Amino acid sequence: MAEGWEPGPELARIAHLDHDRAARRGYPEAVLCEPKSVEQVALIAAEVAAAGTPTLFTRATPEQAAAVLAALSDAHHDPVARVVAWPAAAPEPTGGLVVVVSAGTSDLPVAREAELTARYLGRRTQLVVDVGVAGLHRVLGHLDLLRSARVVVVAAGMDGALPSVVAGLVSAPVVAVPTSVGYGAAFGGVAPLLSMLNACAPGVAVVNIDNGYGGGHLAAQIASS
Amino acid sequence: MAEGWEPGPELARIAHLDHDRAARRGYPEAVLCEPKSVEQVALIAAEVAAAGTPTLFTRATPEQAAAVLAALSDAHHDPVARVVAWPAAAPEPTGGLVVVVSAGTSDLPVAREAELTARYLGRRTQLVVDVGVAGLHRVLGHLDLLRSARVVVVAAGMDGALPSVVAGLVSAPVVAVPTSVGYGAAFGGVAPLLSMLNACAPGVAVVNIDNGYGGGHLAAQIASS
Amino acid sequence: MAEGWEPGPELARIAHLDHDRAARRGYPEAVLCEPKSVEQVALIAAEVAAAGTPTLFTRATPEQAAAVLAALSDAHHDPVARVVAWPAAAPEPTGGLVVVVSAGTSDLPVAREAELTARYLGRRTQLVVDVGVAGLHRVLGHLDLLRSARVVVVAAGMDGALPSVVAGLVSAPVVAVPTSVGYGAAFGGVAPLLSMLNACAPGVAVVNIDNGYGGGHLAAQIASS
Amino acid sequence: MAEGWEPGPELARIAHLDHDRAARRGYPEAVLCEPKSVEQVALIAAEVAAAGTPTLFTRATPEQAAAVLAALSDAHHDPVARVVAWPAAAPEPTGGLVVVVSAGTSDLPVAREAELTARYLGRRTQLVVDVGVAGLHRVLGHLDLLRSARVVVVAAGMDGALPSVVAGLVSAPVVAVPTSVGYGAAFGGVAPLLSMLNACAPGVAVVNIDNGYGGGHLAAQIASS
Amino acid sequence: MAEGWEPGPELARIAHLDHDRAARRGYPEAVLCEPKSVEQVALIAAEVAAAGTPTLFTRATPEQAAAVLAALSDAHHDPVARVVAWPAAAPEPTGGLVVVVSAGTSDLPVAREAELTARYLGRRTQLVVDVGVAGLHRVLGHLDLLRSARVVVVAAGMDGALPSVVAGLVSAPVVAVPTSVGYGAAFGGVAPLLSMLNACAPGVAVVNIDNGYGGGHLAAQIASS
Amino acid sequence: MAEGWEPGPELARIAHLDHDRAARRGYPEAVLCEPKSVEQVALIAAEVAAAGTPTLFTRATPEQAAAVLAALSDAHHDPVARVVAWPAAAPEPTGGLVVVVSAGTSDLPVAREAELTARYLGRRTQLVVDVGVAGLHRVLGHLDLLRSARVVVVAAGMDGALPSVVAGLVSAPVVAVPTSVGYGAAFGGVAPLLSMLNACAPGVAVVNIDNGYGGGHLAAQIASS
Amino acid sequence: MAEGWEPGPELARIAHLDHDRAARRGYPEAVLCEPKSVEQVALIAAEVAAAGTPTLFTRATPEQAAAVLAALSDAHHDPVARVVAWPAAAPEPTGGLVVVVSAGTSDLPVAREAELTARYLGRRTQLVVDVGVAGLHRVLGHLDLLRSARVVVVAAGMDGALPSVVAGLVSAPVVAVPTSVGYGAAFGGVAPLLSMLNACAPGVAVVNIDNGYGGGHLAAQIASS
Amino acid sequence: MAEGWEPGPELARIAHLDHDRAARRGYPEAVLCEPKSVEQVALIAAEVAAAGTPTLFTRATPEQAAAVLAALSDAHHDPVARVVAWPAAAPEPTGGLVVVVSAGTSDLPVAREAELTARYLGRRTQLVVDVGVAGLHRVLGHLDLLRSARVVVVAAGMDGALPSVVAGLVSAPVVAVPTSVGYGAAFGGVAPLLSMLNACAPGVAVVNIDNGYGGGHLAAQIASS
Repeated sequence: MAEGWEPGPELARIAHLDHDRAARRGYPEAVLCEPKSVEQVALIAAEVAAAGTPTLFTRATPEQAAAVLAALSDAHHDPVARVVAWPAAAPEPTGGLVVVVSAGTSDLPVAREAELTARYLGRRTQLVVDVGVAGLHRVLGHLDLLRSARVVVVAAGMDGALPSVVAGLVSAPVVAVPTSVGYGAAFGGVAPLLSMLNACAPGVAVVNIDNGYGGGHLAAQIASS
Repeated sequence: MAEGWEPGPELARIAHLDHDRAARRGYPEAVLCEPKSVEQVALIAAEVAAAGTPTLFTRATPEQAAAVLAALSDAHHDPVARVVAWPAAAPEPTGGLVVVVSAGTSDLPVAREAELTARYLGRRTQLVVDVGVAGLHRVLGHLDLLRSARVVVVAAGMDGALPSVVAGLVSAPVVAVPTSVGYGAAFGGVAPLLSMLNACAPGVAVVNIDNGYGGGHLAAQIASS
Repeated sequence: MAEGWEPGPELARIAHLDHDRAARRGYPEAVLCEPKSVEQVALIAAEVAAAGTPTLFTRATPEQAAAVLAALSDAHHDPVARVVAWPAAAPEPTGGLVVVVSAGTSDLPVAREAELTARYLGRRTQLVVDVGVAGLHRVLGHLDLLRSARVVVVAAGMDGALPSVVAGLVSAPVVAVPTSVGYGAAFGGVAPLLSMLNACAPGVAVVNIDNGYGGGHLAAQIASS
Repeated sequence: MAEGWEPGPELARIAHLDHDRAARRGYPEAVLCEPKSVEQVALIAAEVAAAGTPTLFTRATPEQAAAVLAALSDAHHDPVARVVAWPAAAPEPTGGLVVVVSAGTSDLPVAREAELTARYLGRRTQLVVDVGVAGLHRVLGHLDLLRSARVVVVAAGMDGALPSVVAGLVSAPVVAVPTSVGYGAAFGGVAPLLSMLNACAPGVAVVNIDNGYGGGHLAAQIASS
Repeated sequence: MAEGWEPGPELARIAHLDHDRAARRGYPEAVLCEPKSVEQVALIAAEVAAAGTPTLFTRATPEQAAAVLAALSDAHHDPVARVVAWPAAAPEPTGGLVVVVSAGTSDLPVAREAELTARYLGRRTQLVVDVGVAGLHRVLGHLDLLRSARVVVVAAGMDGALPSVVAGLVSAPVVAVPTSVGYGAAFGGVAPLLSMLNACAPGVAVVNIDNGYGGGHLAAQIASS
Repeated sequence: MAEGWEPGPELARIAHLDHDRAARRGYPEAVLCEPKSVEQVALIAAEVAAAGTPTLFTRATPEQAAAVLAALSDAHHDPVARVVAWPAAAPEPTGGLVVVVSAGTSDLPVAREAELTARYLGRRTQLVVDVGVAGLHRVLGHLDLLRSARVVVVAAGMDGALPSVVAGLVSAPVVAVPTSVGYGAAFGGVAPLLSMLNACAPGVAVVNIDNGYGGGHLAAQIASS
Repeated sequence: MAEGWEPGPELARIAHLDHDRAARRGYPEAVLCEPKSVEQVALIAAEVAAAGTPTLFTRATPEQAAAVLAALSDAHHDPVARVVAWPAAAPEPTGGLVVVVSAGTSDLPVAREAELTARYLGRRTQLVVDVGVAGLHRVLGHLDLLRSARVVVVAAGMDGALPSVVAGLVSAPVVAVPTSVGYGAAFGGVAPLLSMLNACAPGVAVVNIDNGYGGGHLAAQIASS
Repeated sequence: MAEGWEPGPELARIAHLDHDRAARRGYPEAVLCEPKSVEQVALIAAEVAAAGTPTLFTRATPEQAAAVLAALSDAHHDPVARVVAWPAAAPEPTGGLVVVVSAGTSDLPVAREAELTARYLGRRTQLVVDVGVAGLHRVLGHLDLLRSARVVVVAAGMDGALPSVVAGLVSAPVVAVPTSVGYGAAFGGVAPLLSMLNACAPGVAVVNIDNGYGGGHLAAQIASS
């Protein structure tokens, strides 16, 4: 054992996919691609193909998405949201409506990731774009839609003020997703994160910066009934 | 107008209570006592008594609580949660079960504030105490209760690891309330806040540090159906 | 020179009051009381009385205010704003209207300090209280007043969202004063400070946390014509 | 609805340009290019061309600027300030003089962005470069110009000391724009940002780090009369 | 001495390798490659070859690894762990068992670096991968192995919750290595670092973010008897 | 269930003491007194007395210590370390020697807490005081003792440089306990915490700021054989 | 050894005074009183009296100062600087002149501590007060004195801009002492600390926040010849 | 003036070189190249050539260095220190000896920049490399040299412990230059910066992270006599 060391079989498997997750938590498996190599993503996609487990690949670079599609050629790829979903067809929706609001154009990728996640977890979804608080009439113009939602997801960067405003207008819970949109003292999303944690209206649930997947997942759980 | 300045009548009213809130959002008014003077709290309590609006007074010091009880003598005061509720009787519960979990003894005030808030917003609640991750058998011993909840609220300080563990065990959403319990590199609740925002299990909704009211309010909204 | 050291006359004067300031910048002298001892404040007040220079004493504790009033018995003391002004009569107002908005009850001391400062620097002022973004109808109810201002000062803590909303509604510049109102991840005013620096509407001028004096001074300069 | 999901028409419009802004706030539309893709910028430029709304494109990379110029060939492009303005001619100036001061050579892009913004919002402007506090004679040499301004914009990185010095010399308000110039403990502009928020002279209005557009906009509003 | 300056011989040696280290501390020399140029690494490798000192080259880029292998052709290179070890054969193991646990797939490089370091410092090692707290059954499935260790090394990013859980299950000390895996409010490893420093179970020894070498070294020292 | 709410029996027990801990992890129970009320501490002490479980009460104020001694009159109270230990007699020591080093006089309470903890967990201990790096001869004067230790605990505030120096002198692992001693840019212990995490000598295990208990516990585990 | 533990003789001495320091570094011993108990300070003062070592007691509360004077009745106590010096007579001055500048009245305690330290380390000193950059004429009025110094110490809080200005006016090095004077975004001295570290004029030596002793010590060393 | 705007002549000069600096402060001009474009650097070099002012170009990329050498072909370029000096010959040295110490190999560029700066400002210099505190014998081996210096410059990253150790060994002042060497919780040089600001030995002068130029400049001023 003291000589040139060889990786044992336990290294061959770089990840333990949790195929029971659907059973245990009721939702598909998700694979966060970003910190993984293209080779690791390809390996996992092959295992998904073999096992037939419904899976969302999130934060996939074009190269990672191609690796997934090579193994799961009938998957759905949304390049804006950076999501690859397999199977391509979302389940028949149940539960309440999930409305996703994007404060600005640049928050769209995160908002789309949230919307797709909620849809593939089995919810009806609706996306509203570019309704920042600097033009209140934009928000107020969607009031009926917002009030028809079981949960509203709001993706916003910069001052992160939109969730406070929306939460003051509806009785449903609001899932706030801070984004890294902004510069300088936005500090990569810290400014909207702190705004949202300190929202002056109650009923705001905060997730990690740029975490569209987490926001959509949480919304789907809330809107399950 | 240039001489010795006198406060006009607009100053006589230091706060605009939002009596339509119940109608607009469906829940009682809440008054955050902490940053207000005892006099301000007394003034607001008198206005609540006059208007008859169901109200929760949160983060009330003993002096502030006494001021509220002077105006609303039949209110319910919970000194651990630092909450005064009027009227004392919570509404007949509707919706799903809210289970509130306190990671440690010192997280109890925040957990109680969350539980009381959810109860006065009309939910059935159950409180489980001192089930930190250092003794996993404690969490696992409550698995059936946790899985029967429509939403689980977890109050935890220090490493803030409990919401990740609970979210991995149940399919309901988890509302995570970081507490300022801890010292040194806990930085007044920053450590558990960051843990919860980075929970490795999806479905974790984070609110502000020590914000038991916010956590309970969010849980009541989620469990409304 | 090497023996027991004695403070020379240059120490007798702990401060160099800048009596030419009015001439140079056009506004009264201001003395920030907070970091000074009661004795130092008394000394300065005596010098002001001797020199007859119009002066604002800001962030004065009750003890410091008493020390000022001992030397300048006809001064105006506003205990909420923690300001002592001498002479008590504000100058005849010139320039445009300064509207000061307080997001919540607890932001009132800072808002009052800003209003008083602008008034003693020679502007007409109007104070609007408790109009947080959680109830948009409150802000919108003051739209005419807001649009009649040459500059609007907004004092807000917690999410600091109000300046963005106001700046989107008016064409005048908005002076945003973050307050230390809030707890947990408000970090003593950092959260609203960052929100305001990242306001999604342009035209927001930010000053230091709780700096009502600075906000009022800036507003008076902006509204000078 | 459960099969392969298609983006609805609401996604076709990635942004809601606010053509009423000029009417509502009195200034041209602005498009922050940096966080947008070249395609998104091109789409918006085409819409601007169709609608004929005066617009400033800010923080434009060379590729983004080219995309704008493809749609609006007679626009003015300033590569140092990274601004594209359409129409190229600034409005006939009204109001007071805006003097823009650049502390160092490296602060020039931000200072130019501020100057151009104020000019296209209808103000006379003057730019003074490289007058850091390490050589006070440089600042003092421009004293007459500084004192003739209705508002002074100061762009400075590193120690951010210049706004304090300038504000002590003039009676006009000073708009301070911290820049990310510096290294190490400058922390990408945090050091000058904090200096400016703590300026020992009153009358300093702070905007976000590197926010030349915001600084110029605010200055134009202040100097409107 | 005042003319054109020439580097003296003291500059020829850019580093003083500490060949007595093995004698003094009982372990091989280590060279942190990352902040060094390829030329510097090559120079050091040549000196190692000349002196015959057992050495670990850590955080080696492919180019740096190639430079080492050029001088020490029989060294062992592990590209995942980014380690080059010379001589290739680890010493005959003594002391107790070091179990290394990787919370997620993306923590594997750090975990491997820790494992290799402990092995080349003379310990038996075992690696367990992808056992995050979101699926507790994974951790519990390795309980016997964990309890057989003299020390457990845990590499984890994101919420960093695994060391708390493991430390609560075993009586051996746990070496916690926070990783920079995660995004947003993970802040490059700060979130798991703080979690680990605040672990609610005692017996958790924390090292620097991504410091697999340090974690493995510490584990080898602990397990020396 | 909808009327005035009464705490159920599950609230009567504010804490679940983990009497199996000794069996499971091999060490006595510990109660962190600081965040608990005197009443809570008294309740727990009474339960300890009833159950007969060896227990350390840490960070006890004089009032909390008195409450413990009221229930456990034969306990040992160390007011400097703020520890109350029951039973008073430490177990017969086994394993290796634990040397605890205090960098300065003010680090003594933390160092003593570490030493007592290790002693009550069954190790031989030795305490060395006031050997900061500003006078290296002090450290070097204890070299033989330091090299005879199975593990060295170093408590240091301010620059936190001592663990690096000690770790470079011995082959045993070093447990580094940063303290909040210092002011200004020591930031309550952050400066020594970061120094220790970046120690240039390997083999440094860091625990939380002021966590003498954790440092002593870890040392006892390391020195168990 | 396993029974009730007694502190050994090594604990009787809580500190190792470094009486050789004067010989080794050429300056008197210094005792930082702040983090020590009154008893500890009294013990140390008694030892100083016995050994006859010249000593500075810094950051002494009135109680600590009284304890020192009880043992060293002929010591010099400066309550503003919070310094007690023994012997009272400073040494015959040698070397160059140390000019100490206080930006504002509130920086005076720190400036005095610096001046006294330099004086007791054997330098001529001169103190200039209240010369902040908001009134440049104040600084410029002392230009001759500043230019006659071998080193200038500048104590400043808030924007910390004064050292940059002074360093641009003199050829001597400037020792910059940031103070915790200020509020809000001054963050207890962080704002001036960062300003000083980023001073746009070279030749600025920074010490810890409020570290008047360190600033004076450094100045005395610089001005030794 | 309202049409297409043209840069006036004041923009042609992007920088105001301060040719009187040598007279005023006694040292050559310095140009920080890093934040400037190659074109700007070339322009400045041409002006230097025309004016004949001795100048140091610091933090020059290879491209920037080439641009300087194109205008000043007989300048001295040190690629490790990233310095270009003109004229190439340093002045005849005066004053005391400046010893520059590099804690590790990777700190060498900063140490070299400091040494070159001191040399071109007219001091004798000596460089000592790779003497980190993990091997104290390295530092102690240079004790005579260190004690012969008028000032010691120490460049160190990671734990930044070396200045404390050196300052405890010599009576001369120590200029501490924190470097960005390290990773993880070194936070780009924050860890050594804080260590140095909290050095437990007095006499440590801190400059900005990686500021070799500033460290060398300060040292040259200190050693001027």
